[in-house]
Amino acid sequence: MTLLYDVAAIGNAIVDVIAPAEDTFLQAEGLDKGAMMLVDEVRSTDLYSRMAAGVETSGGSAGNTIAGIASFGGRAAYMGKVAKDQLGDVFVHDMRAIGAHFDTPPLIGGPATARSLINVTPDGERTMCTFLGASTEFTADDVDAKIIEAARIVYLEGYLFDAEAARRAFAKAAGLARASGRMIALTLSDGFVAERHREGLLAFLETQVDLVFANQNEVCTLFETDDFLEALSRLRTKVKLAAVTRGAGGSVILRGTEAVEVAAFSVDRVIDTTGAGDQYAAGFMFGLAADRPLEVCGQLGSLAAAEVISHYGPRPQVRLADLAAQKGL
Amino acid sequence: MTLLYDVAAIGNAIVDVIAPAEDTFLQAEGLDKGAMMLVDEVRSTDLYSRMAAGVETSGGSAGNTIAGIASFGGRAAYMGKVAKDQLGDVFVHDMRAIGAHFDTPPLIGGPATARSLINVTPDGERTMCTFLGASTEFTADDVDAKIIEAARIVYLEGYLFDAEAARRAFAKAAGLARASGRMIALTLSDGFVAERHREGLLAFLETQVDLVFANQNEVCTLFETDDFLEALSRLRTKVKLAAVTRGAGGSVILRGTEAVEVAAFSVDRVIDTTGAGDQYAAGFMFGLAADRPLEVCGQLGSLAAAEVISHYGPRPQVRLADLAAQKGL
Repeated sequence: MTLLYDVAAIGNAIVDVIAPAEDTFLQAEGLDKGAMMLVDEVRSTDLYSRMAAGVETSGGSAGNTIAGIASFGGRAAYMGKVAKDQLGDVFVHDMRAIGAHFDTPPLIGGPATARSLINVTPDGERTMCTFLGASTEFTADDVDAKIIEAARIVYLEGYLFDAEAARRAFAKAAGLARASGRMIALTLSDGFVAERHREGLLAFLETQVDLVFANQNEVCTLFETDDFLEALSRLRTKVKLAAVTRGAGGSVILRGTEAVEVAAFSVDRVIDTTGAGDQYAAGFMFGLAADRPLEVCGQLGSLAAAEVISHYGPRPQVRLADLAAQKGL
Repeated sequence: MTLLYDVAAIGNAIVDVIAPAEDTFLQAEGLDKGAMMLVDEVRSTDLYSRMAAGVETSGGSAGNTIAGIASFGGRAAYMGKVAKDQLGDVFVHDMRAIGAHFDTPPLIGGPATARSLINVTPDGERTMCTFLGASTEFTADDVDAKIIEAARIVYLEGYLFDAEAARRAFAKAAGLARASGRMIALTLSDGFVAERHREGLLAFLETQVDLVFANQNEVCTLFETDDFLEALSRLRTKVKLAAVTRGAGGSVILRGTEAVEVAAFSVDRVIDTTGAGDQYAAGFMFGLAADRPLEVCGQLGSLAAAEVISHYGPRPQVRLADLAAQKGL
């Protein structure tokens, strides 16, 4: 089988609605700052009516990562479910316009395309309320074996653990990847996801996953400890390769007994942290697929994350390939 | 009648799709750089399929101006027609979220909400292809007499001359404004609009309009001359008050035999000129409604235009009221 793709990803196909907000707004709405909360359509509409004027842009964690891979010049494919509606059309357009392969058939006659209402506070922190809509209708039937088998790395989004049909799709994708010798990567996605699906995630990590992405909060939540170093040492026992981000503190990469620390790239001003973890994963996997040393993989991740937090929106606004060349990576 | 609004506007209610493009793309697509071209839905879909990944944001010339007025802290109302669809919901939300009054009933069962595909070249110039969709279904019935009569300035968008029903709506709005002693402002909108509707625009200017906004190209096109000074001297004879913008060359304000020249505010880097004229009109009318001197009106316009060209998107991203305070305006 020819390797057509550096990375193929499965994720919740979501359009982001991004607007500025004050901390008092989050408090009044009872929103946990920095988290991703699931909301139903009624709550989504209700919350939207009180949000500030915003911009709409394609998002979704794995979708953002795929956009990052493509921006680095990597070959990428995406699987995820939108509805046949205006926002779904936008999502499909943006994915194809960046050069990613994307042909999951849209949902007809079901819920609308997923949207995430993202309130960005003046400190750049983003708080997300996501109506999953059509994205939860992604099923095992939508997992394209030809794409999985043609991808160096198969990347799965932890958020999909929230939908039962998607968990079955994960199992199918993981089985196909394992059978064809592909690397399986997983992002824990969010502290609440780690909390909601701890047992399932741990079992999946131990049995299926080669590479895991997490941030400090997620890894501590997963292992139910406040001690970051303890969480890291337990993570080591579960998975061959892990990349754990710490915001401005950079990242730490674990492989067996090896640990590589990578600094964050400095940013003039943090505008919107949406997509920081997604872009870190993009840079890291782009490097890994090109057999770069782990430290360089981490630096590529930091570089992509620094680009995306310096503007509104979860996807790169300059070509990451150019940025990497400028930085000698 | 209490004056509830500084400005009430009628315009094409449009959602913008903004994406970066190279000049070669404009040439390959046969697009006139810097202009606004009308396209049908088929051409819109076709062009979109070849555009880069973009962001979606509420736009429309007069809608942008109303957003600017609100951002200055002014009281504003808007009339325009969207469809009852996702992009229409976004437009309505954004208008209300900025604090503008907007209750034109959405169109049901007709064409989709208007969208403008905006290709932004590396020099910051924007080239627009607009599918007017539901916006052309704005009729005289949608002109709310109570709003017109309660507004200090009634602002009309020249683009609406492209739709016959909207021209009748203009006539109704102008009649109501005249009857209640309100000031009527018009923007010429675009050189091609001035070309397509020269006679209608000239007649409307002479008989109904108190204040006209135009840029250098539009005023020269309207009077069929390459001589800017000649165009200005002919404009003087048609309308009591005119504000003519010249990009980086600032603006010139004409009242009777008086002429006031106002410099442009300097900008570190021009990113996207979409909305520059709209925001100039916002600043100018905000000042005029507060009885500020013409020079200050022009400076407020320049300030708002400078803010909007320094980022992607046609509406202010910082509060213009704060910006004006910082600059001592």
